Amino acid sequence: MTASLTIALDAMGGDHGPQVTVPAALDSVAAHPQLRLILVGDETVLKRQVGTAAARFGDRIVIQHASETIEMHESPAKALRSKKDSSMRVAIDLVKDGVAAACVSAGNTGALMAIAKFVLKTLPGIDRPAIIATVPAMTGHTHVLDLGANVDCTAEHLYQFAVMGHELVRAVEDKDQPRVGLLNIGEEEIKGNEQVKQAARLLADSPLNFVGYVEGNDLYSGSVDIVVTDGFVGNVALKTSEGVAKMISQSIKREFERNVFTRLAGLIALPVLQSFKKRYDPRRYNGASLLGLRGIVIKSHGNADRLSFANAINIAVKEVEKAVPLRIGERIAGVFSARKTA
Amino acid sequence: MTASLTIALDAMGGDHGPQVTVPAALDSVAAHPQLRLILVGDETVLKRQVGTAAARFGDRIVIQHASETIEMHESPAKALRSKKDSSMRVAIDLVKDGVAAACVSAGNTGALMAIAKFVLKTLPGIDRPAIIATVPAMTGHTHVLDLGANVDCTAEHLYQFAVMGHELVRAVEDKDQPRVGLLNIGEEEIKGNEQVKQAARLLADSPLNFVGYVEGNDLYSGSVDIVVTDGFVGNVALKTSEGVAKMISQSIKREFERNVFTRLAGLIALPVLQSFKKRYDPRRYNGASLLGLRGIVIKSHGNADRLSFANAINIAVKEVEKAVPLRIGERIAGVFSARKTA
Repeated sequence: MTASLTIALDAMGGDHGPQVTVPAALDSVAAHPQLRLILVGDETVLKRQVGTAAARFGDRIVIQHASETIEMHESPAKALRSKKDSSMRVAIDLVKDGVAAACVSAGNTGALMAIAKFVLKTLPGIDRPAIIATVPAMTGHTHVLDLGANVDCTAEHLYQFAVMGHELVRAVEDKDQPRVGLLNIGEEEIKGNEQVKQAARLLADSPLNFVGYVEGNDLYSGSVDIVVTDGFVGNVALKTSEGVAKMISQSIKREFERNVFTRLAGLIALPVLQSFKKRYDPRRYNGASLLGLRGIVIKSHGNADRLSFANAINIAVKEVEKAVPLRIGERIAGVFSARKTA
Repeated sequence: MTASLTIALDAMGGDHGPQVTVPAALDSVAAHPQLRLILVGDETVLKRQVGTAAARFGDRIVIQHASETIEMHESPAKALRSKKDSSMRVAIDLVKDGVAAACVSAGNTGALMAIAKFVLKTLPGIDRPAIIATVPAMTGHTHVLDLGANVDCTAEHLYQFAVMGHELVRAVEDKDQPRVGLLNIGEEEIKGNEQVKQAARLLADSPLNFVGYVEGNDLYSGSVDIVVTDGFVGNVALKTSEGVAKMISQSIKREFERNVFTRLAGLIALPVLQSFKKRYDPRRYNGASLLGLRGIVIKSHGNADRLSFANAINIAVKEVEKAVPLRIGERIAGVFSARKTA
């Protein structure tokens, strides 16, 4: 089979840079025979890191030089303005020029969003791109957006997020009518703010499978496929979840390390706990999609390891195969024409 | 020792009503020799539930009749307007009249907030009461507010929440300079919304020990004593945490039930897991305080069991002993006079 699917990697991005991105890239081309990867970054560093491994894959591993790197805490505005030859910018340019079908970066989220928006532009009918990620649930998993790109959202923005999430899940999960929930709080007196109430009305009138309001615990209950919220709330919910999970896993570990008897119990329980850990391994969920752009951009956690970063590449492969931006564009166009004729 | 501390219980509130509130009340008077409880609700039902147990405690268990009950999903406005003889209303009236020093209810949160605000009024200088609760952290625990009473908050509201949380923690934890964090998101480009940024400026200029912005995971990291946020975000963060914890505990259970070997491993690991479970038992954290009122009102989870409800009574006892509303009032007055002279 010949390589037919090209993805650009910001090979310098993330806390670990090429030490993680290059081995993950090699794993990915080995796993996907149709995949071709362009590693963007410092040519000397990348050549050394790739070494002789690339020979095995011929032109399916290509290095493209970029002279600059965007730092993790650099101002997005400055990165956009002044670093035109950064590994991140060049990788996104490759998507714009049609050389690559998607781009993956573990770099600075704000810079990635700013550059992707500037270079690729949003799809017609989309005001703002959103960030969507997947979390494990009691049954299956849940897709949550927005996760931090948009702090203050109108009802129309929330509605557009729902449409984008809906198309993504339809595409990558092969679910025809994914269940969409709108995040709210359950106190009767003060249920929701105006934006959320109005977004609920828009969603109820839409062709989407809107199941109504959901609460924070529904991110993990498996009762919906998509949870829609603004970027502030979504980001806090996700970070809070990470905090709880970390506290629980560290405490269990500490309990088993208490004395010789608990250590023995821990040894016996180990295989069971590891099978549990594997199911919820956050590395298997790494990779958030920037939705609403004229191109596919996947953001990996900054501290991703080899397995995590390869998972983000997997997500890019899937979205390319399913032509996610095209589908979102068509759905949004359909929504608009339906509104006009209504 | 004679009873010197009287608390009113909405004995009909919650999913289980007197079946839980009465046994919890008996446990509490047994545990606190200075405590006297007024059980408010249907006299016949309560007398039957108390039975002969009350005799042991003399006048430290008193029943006060109330002819109505507020349902869990009743509209707060309607409950406030039309149920003047509800167990919740009568319990709050007892606080207003100085008969009881605090009130505890597991009933409808919206109704409790509406009635408490109407009957007790807010402290001078406080625009809106807030709900604060405690969650376990890697080290110690964290107090979080607001948890749902206020959806749209100005910077000034967030600032008042910080002052109230600060005084509560100083009082009940005997910490002189509790660390205050303001919940925000970490994406550089879009860090915070205007209210949060402005609240940060107010806090930085205040005498409080403001440590700056924190993120969702800091609810559980132990890096701060108090996390301040608006009611929408706080409520979502708490419910999300409950969702994660439930998913993890159910999955661990499922893994240990997989087959005869994992069941055996589970038996051996049981004491260790139980010691872990005890540390994070949500019942030990039951009881949220309505802060900013001219009186002490504690909200228990609706589905609280005997141990949980007794914990909510414990919190009321502590806040009465430490005169929390008085301290908040003094601190707020101090803040205002400091501003005037500045």
